[in-house]
Amino acid sequence: MALIVQKFGGTSVGSIERIEAVADLVVKTKQQGHQVVVVLSAMSGETNRLINLAKQIDTRPSSRELDVLISTGEQVSVSLLAMAIIKRGHSAVSLLADQVNIQTDNMFGKARIEEVAATRLKHELEHNRIAIIAGFQGRDVEGNITTLGRGGTDTSAVEIAAAIKADECQIYTDVDGVYTTDPRVEPNAQRMRHVTFAEMLELASLGAKVLHIRAVESAGNHKMPLRVLSSFEPDEGTLISFEESDMPTKVVSGIAFNRDECLIKVHGVPYCVHSLTKILKLFAENGIEIDMISQVNHNFEKIDYAFTVHSNDYLQAHDLLTQQQVNLQADSISSDTTVAKVSAVGIGMKSHSGVAHQFFDALAQEGIHIVLVSTSEIKVSVLIDEKYLELAVRALHSEFLTENG
Amino acid sequence: MALIVQKFGGTSVGSIERIEAVADLVVKTKQQGHQVVVVLSAMSGETNRLINLAKQIDTRPSSRELDVLISTGEQVSVSLLAMAIIKRGHSAVSLLADQVNIQTDNMFGKARIEEVAATRLKHELEHNRIAIIAGFQGRDVEGNITTLGRGGTDTSAVEIAAAIKADECQIYTDVDGVYTTDPRVEPNAQRMRHVTFAEMLELASLGAKVLHIRAVESAGNHKMPLRVLSSFEPDEGTLISFEESDMPTKVVSGIAFNRDECLIKVHGVPYCVHSLTKILKLFAENGIEIDMISQVNHNFEKIDYAFTVHSNDYLQAHDLLTQQQVNLQADSISSDTTVAKVSAVGIGMKSHSGVAHQFFDALAQEGIHIVLVSTSEIKVSVLIDEKYLELAVRALHSEFLTENG
Repeated sequence: MALIVQKFGGTSVGSIERIEAVADLVVKTKQQGHQVVVVLSAMSGETNRLINLAKQIDTRPSSRELDVLISTGEQVSVSLLAMAIIKRGHSAVSLLADQVNIQTDNMFGKARIEEVAATRLKHELEHNRIAIIAGFQGRDVEGNITTLGRGGTDTSAVEIAAAIKADECQIYTDVDGVYTTDPRVEPNAQRMRHVTFAEMLELASLGAKVLHIRAVESAGNHKMPLRVLSSFEPDEGTLISFEESDMPTKVVSGIAFNRDECLIKVHGVPYCVHSLTKILKLFAENGIEIDMISQVNHNFEKIDYAFTVHSNDYLQAHDLLTQQQVNLQADSISSDTTVAKVSAVGIGMKSHSGVAHQFFDALAQEGIHIVLVSTSEIKVSVLIDEKYLELAVRALHSEFLTENG
Repeated sequence: MALIVQKFGGTSVGSIERIEAVADLVVKTKQQGHQVVVVLSAMSGETNRLINLAKQIDTRPSSRELDVLISTGEQVSVSLLAMAIIKRGHSAVSLLADQVNIQTDNMFGKARIEEVAATRLKHELEHNRIAIIAGFQGRDVEGNITTLGRGGTDTSAVEIAAAIKADECQIYTDVDGVYTTDPRVEPNAQRMRHVTFAEMLELASLGAKVLHIRAVESAGNHKMPLRVLSSFEPDEGTLISFEESDMPTKVVSGIAFNRDECLIKVHGVPYCVHSLTKILKLFAENGIEIDMISQVNHNFEKIDYAFTVHSNDYLQAHDLLTQQQVNLQADSISSDTTVAKVSAVGIGMKSHSGVAHQFFDALAQEGIHIVLVSTSEIKVSVLIDEKYLELAVRALHSEFLTENG
């Protein structure tokens, strides 16, 4: 008998039929002899419907009140699932953040969980009840409703699993696991059976979008094994765990990519140790996150800087630098929105040399120019012309991952 | 400066436009120098939408979970109104049952409020904030969400008003007050400026349906003045208060009627002091409420009983009596669903004689036969053939209420 937390996302509970299917799945797990705690998102479309109501009143509604509003989405889905499980003859009880004591800070709309009290949940489990908890939400110390931001239900599930010392936290979604790359780009993409937290963090932040990045971080911190599965066709899915697999490790686990990056260059800044700091401070003060950074020095006289930012921040970043051009004594500011990032990620890189060479060689053979490079212990990323993105992903997947490729 | 509780029903907050109008109205009251606490229903249609979701899962869903589900309706409306008021530059805060400590018993779906803690509300008022409270819901001692049943938001408003010792509890709805009878039946119906709790209780229970009966009872108990007004065209509305008006009292305040009554007769029961008790016990055990009761004795040998029940209970009541006919030694059971009740209500009856005579005379002049009669200190009710209902209402209104009539 294991203690399992099962999290179901919006598409998994997107209709009455889907909620019935989830009820069957939960009951089946219970009938296999396990203890089950369920964490739910709102029915798909519901959160957007509520946000649209708010926007009709105020384009920038009160963040406290927006959280009161959108937290109703999960309250609806947990009560409906509880009804469906009770109808199947099992004891179930829906629980909201205040009833389980999910305490967060008071950053409405993007709160972080500070504590989950296990008492109430343990009480329900001892009484053989299936506890169904509203994800995505908490309460601050003053009792105000908070939400964790999009995808926060994954984080709720992990924190709850950690609080009750679950054996595994299962994340049910509309895909059946984590793939070696996006199958829409590379039909030969394969599902990974096992991936480490470190790899998943790089893959998630690079755009794999299967799991909320905070949830992976949180699971890593708690050493809570995560499993990604499909609620439509449940099988073993992909296990994300702390231990490295005892199977022979591939050098590269996956090829991630991101179309949402834009390149901004600052040309001809006079050589000075403070100039990069000035630019980074400008971005930080305006809440703009930088991904890749590169610097080229010309004879200790002039420096060129290149950055990538998210396309949402691109216009603001470009405007800020243009306003500061005189102050920075830069010759010019230029930018390019037709770029994309592609990355190879693998825990095996730590112990294998020659990966970078293989990586660049595969791209060179396709005649793909590289704009920027960034590396870590388990990752190689390059920025390239967006039009070569699919070609690059397929070339790298074939080089590192396609069997008989 | 007064402390005013304003309650808005479902049609008053039935759309974004309506919520904006309510925000204007609340802000106007505040700008007049009053302290305002608002109590809201769900947007009209929302509670039914949620119940329909539940019924798709289970025709008899768990009552605990149904309350979790439908209580989201008010959570949506309070957050939207708070946003609209904040946008208008005033401080506002939405509050749910657990945040205001609205404690109820644990009768899910029909809970009764046991206590409202005034502490949090007084805190908000002291900080010059408009508190907007989700009506219709509470929490039991274990922290489970409960709801008060249809129309319960009126009761929430009254209990909250009593807890904070408000000067007046204003019930905004889609009509502009309580009328002397239904204007759809009698176009000469006039709005009452003032009615006592006792009269309102008789008028509400007889079908005026302007106010939830429990709320009127509760307001009477707390001696909390109630005012019914239109949120569409606000003016002075109708004041319901404990004191009798100092204006000259009319003998009859209103003519109420009810089409939802059915007549059931038990004929020829042998004379026995216990026979009525037997029948009433049968109804009570099956949760059937009886309205009018009449008894006719034939020479101390046989008795005929006549009862009226709500049309929802009619079939069950008829079946129960038919099953018990042999046991009751009754000659026969008969029934009539084409009856209606019409009543004249007035606190002035206490001190005026001749009202009953005037009442029956007015009906006799129209040739209307009377099936059953029931009277109280401030009410005369008769059961008549349903097809004469409008005629009877107009005749009685003309007799007692129409000026120059």
